[in-house]
Amino acid sequence: MYAATATIHTHLKDRYGERLSDSLALRSQHAHGEGLQDAHLPDVVVFAESTEEVAHIVGLCHAARVPIVPFGTGTSLEGHVAALHGGVCIDLSRMNQIIAVNPEDLDCRVQAGVTRMQLNRDIKAQGLFFPIDPGADASLGGMAATRASGTNAVRYGTMRENVLGFTVVTAEGKIIHTGTRARKSSAGYDLTRLFVGSEGTLGIMTEVQLKLYGLPECMAAAISQFDTLEGAVASVIMAMQMGIPMARIELLDSVQMAASIAYSKLEGLAAKPTLFFEFHGSERYVAEQAEMMQDISSENGGSDYRWVKAQEERTALWQARHHAYYAAMASRPGYQCMATDACVPISRLAECITEAGKLIEQSGLSAPIVGHAGDGNFHLQPLYDPKDAEMTARAHALTSAVSALAIRLGGTCSGEHGIGFHKLEALKAEHGEAIGLMQSIKKALDPNNIMNPGKTVPM
Amino acid sequence: MYAATATIHTHLKDRYGERLSDSLALRSQHAHGEGLQDAHLPDVVVFAESTEEVAHIVGLCHAARVPIVPFGTGTSLEGHVAALHGGVCIDLSRMNQIIAVNPEDLDCRVQAGVTRMQLNRDIKAQGLFFPIDPGADASLGGMAATRASGTNAVRYGTMRENVLGFTVVTAEGKIIHTGTRARKSSAGYDLTRLFVGSEGTLGIMTEVQLKLYGLPECMAAAISQFDTLEGAVASVIMAMQMGIPMARIELLDSVQMAASIAYSKLEGLAAKPTLFFEFHGSERYVAEQAEMMQDISSENGGSDYRWVKAQEERTALWQARHHAYYAAMASRPGYQCMATDACVPISRLAECITEAGKLIEQSGLSAPIVGHAGDGNFHLQPLYDPKDAEMTARAHALTSAVSALAIRLGGTCSGEHGIGFHKLEALKAEHGEAIGLMQSIKKALDPNNIMNPGKTVPM
Repeated sequence: MYAATATIHTHLKDRYGERLSDSLALRSQHAHGEGLQDAHLPDVVVFAESTEEVAHIVGLCHAARVPIVPFGTGTSLEGHVAALHGGVCIDLSRMNQIIAVNPEDLDCRVQAGVTRMQLNRDIKAQGLFFPIDPGADASLGGMAATRASGTNAVRYGTMRENVLGFTVVTAEGKIIHTGTRARKSSAGYDLTRLFVGSEGTLGIMTEVQLKLYGLPECMAAAISQFDTLEGAVASVIMAMQMGIPMARIELLDSVQMAASIAYSKLEGLAAKPTLFFEFHGSERYVAEQAEMMQDISSENGGSDYRWVKAQEERTALWQARHHAYYAAMASRPGYQCMATDACVPISRLAECITEAGKLIEQSGLSAPIVGHAGDGNFHLQPLYDPKDAEMTARAHALTSAVSALAIRLGGTCSGEHGIGFHKLEALKAEHGEAIGLMQSIKKALDPNNIMNPGKTVPM
Repeated sequence: MYAATATIHTHLKDRYGERLSDSLALRSQHAHGEGLQDAHLPDVVVFAESTEEVAHIVGLCHAARVPIVPFGTGTSLEGHVAALHGGVCIDLSRMNQIIAVNPEDLDCRVQAGVTRMQLNRDIKAQGLFFPIDPGADASLGGMAATRASGTNAVRYGTMRENVLGFTVVTAEGKIIHTGTRARKSSAGYDLTRLFVGSEGTLGIMTEVQLKLYGLPECMAAAISQFDTLEGAVASVIMAMQMGIPMARIELLDSVQMAASIAYSKLEGLAAKPTLFFEFHGSERYVAEQAEMMQDISSENGGSDYRWVKAQEERTALWQARHHAYYAAMASRPGYQCMATDACVPISRLAECITEAGKLIEQSGLSAPIVGHAGDGNFHLQPLYDPKDAEMTARAHALTSAVSALAIRLGGTCSGEHGIGFHKLEALKAEHGEAIGLMQSIKKALDPNNIMNPGKTVPM
């Protein structure tokens, strides 16, 4: 245990009893997210049950200069929850109350530990849904913290667009509120957007106010296959220009399709570049969108356009998409997947994926590609044997090269996975001198550097 | 002239020659925006023509601790451009180059002095438009600085959702870039969103990267009149819940309708609560939306639902809406209008406007109300005789009371006009302890308090 943590251990134990643990098993489980498995153990894990408790714990850590790592479901991919400097891991998973749902205003307030599926189960009967879907059943606090998005972002935006406000415990242990219940505001600096994507480095979000949406009358999916990646991307560009408000438009490259066909038993599909679509709206409007998309895709060399309306078939399709990661891993038994993330202007997407293909070839690795094509966002999933240090290094080099490529094409090293501590170098390359402002903000709001130190911004 | 300004005057004059002016006329013209006419003259006005020039001027001001006020078109409403502490006004109106338009990516980059109408004229031939429409033909830099929105925000969002990045000159005179051309990013703190709405107090935005949209195939408008405000608002709530993607949904109260009927010669309409709608999309989809809206509005007591498809009639309708401010003023010749701004959860909109009505009655003033009802945003336009100090005080008291009312109902004191220096007290009431974080950020990015001092955040 780090010395600083030792000074507050008794205090914490007295107050939180069984809810504080320093068992190796629990600390190990809290030492990493998904993706890269570099474990950095916190000294203790405390399960907080209220904003006031979080404030109390942070207050103690503030006084004793103990590092703090907030923890939701541990599904992040860039090492966000690794306790690089030990300290206290505050587990928020028991803060899982849905505080208020307001159907008239299409919003709700939840504790940070509520997961997106829990919320959706709760509000479905009221004809509502929360669309942001990063794949994992992540906590909404964690999703806000990493500025998560996923398959529905092309229509509904990311966490950036869908958080209305927070309750935040500051680095000093004060409780503040950002935003209001109004849909928009020009009142002062946008603290809400500053905390979205701050990865626990500026304070801990304990409550989140979210936008909700009415469940669409009708949802339908479609698939189209292409001989070339360019044809698939050209279809996406045309659809965006025409303003077809697609709910999802997902790209799988031929390598990923081969893996997904094998893993998810997809029938009647070839291992070719493929688009999966989803449309939301009235019956008539969904039909119109699906027909327009069919025209666009055949204009661009798409074939086998299939429209999937039955709930069951639609679910199977999206399950296959969500299982892309597992399908990739299953294609190389015993290997791990170092999922990485890049986002470029959509006009550069085909070029970026083609160039990434060359980098994959040079690396000698297999790396299926899936992407939220409507946003220009894609994931490369290099498969590597974690026991093979040289191969692991090649996987790291490949992901770094993809970050550099995306930045060179006017894009970003992270569309939705965040920075954590894996992408600090890429962040510097992307933002240049603007990093200085990020550092100033970090120092201003967390002068003792106790909030998730070593993450998000190089200090 | 303030002493500090005097120390750099020669430097500036040498470099900028005729583009620097200390004439009283020009300084007076730059001493206030619209709305309240409290003039605070800058010591000099400099017309900058490039980011490098802005950086040079800011660098000089930084060294000599001279206050700086950035100036676009001077159409803001809360005193943003008043030079409360003298100093240098940097006029950006000559930075009016459209740097790049990318139809495939639906984005563009403009210098901060480009106005929204200039941009829309330029991109129309490419089938594109930029929807944010605050009424005034404001500069896009200024619109970003005040987090402007307006009639189209219910569908297309505000400047918050539509700025992808900036070139910024920092308080030290450094040039940095925020954001990328990617549609979304999880890479570091969201500096772009921090500068949106920062009102020139953290740095000067000299270039703006913006989202664009394809011009809809079809646009149609509609009008519906209601006996009660509640009926109008209930229609809006139902339409939002059903997810009808209306482009505009505007509310005018009976007082405003009386003024607009007289001023804009609107025929066949009564002085009753009225909704103006606009629908964008394919022919078929626009028809579907307009029909759904008609059903909703008659369910809620709406009458005389009129569908306006002809371009000319549609333009006349929206002109009447945009002239609401002038119509209000024309209803009391010789009076001024102290337009104020509030935004509440939509479920509280009817209550808020009804309560505001009581406050208007108590004030003894006439104050027409117009609102972007889909966002829960409305403007009260108290009419007062600026030569009558007692009446002016009553108008001020009324606008303050409306801010307090909106905050009490879970909303904000400013939906889109910003804080400037008029609403600092309301900001404090709205944000409580979170003001401390805003102050920390201001101090971190502008330690000498030279960037538009006295605005946005009380220091």
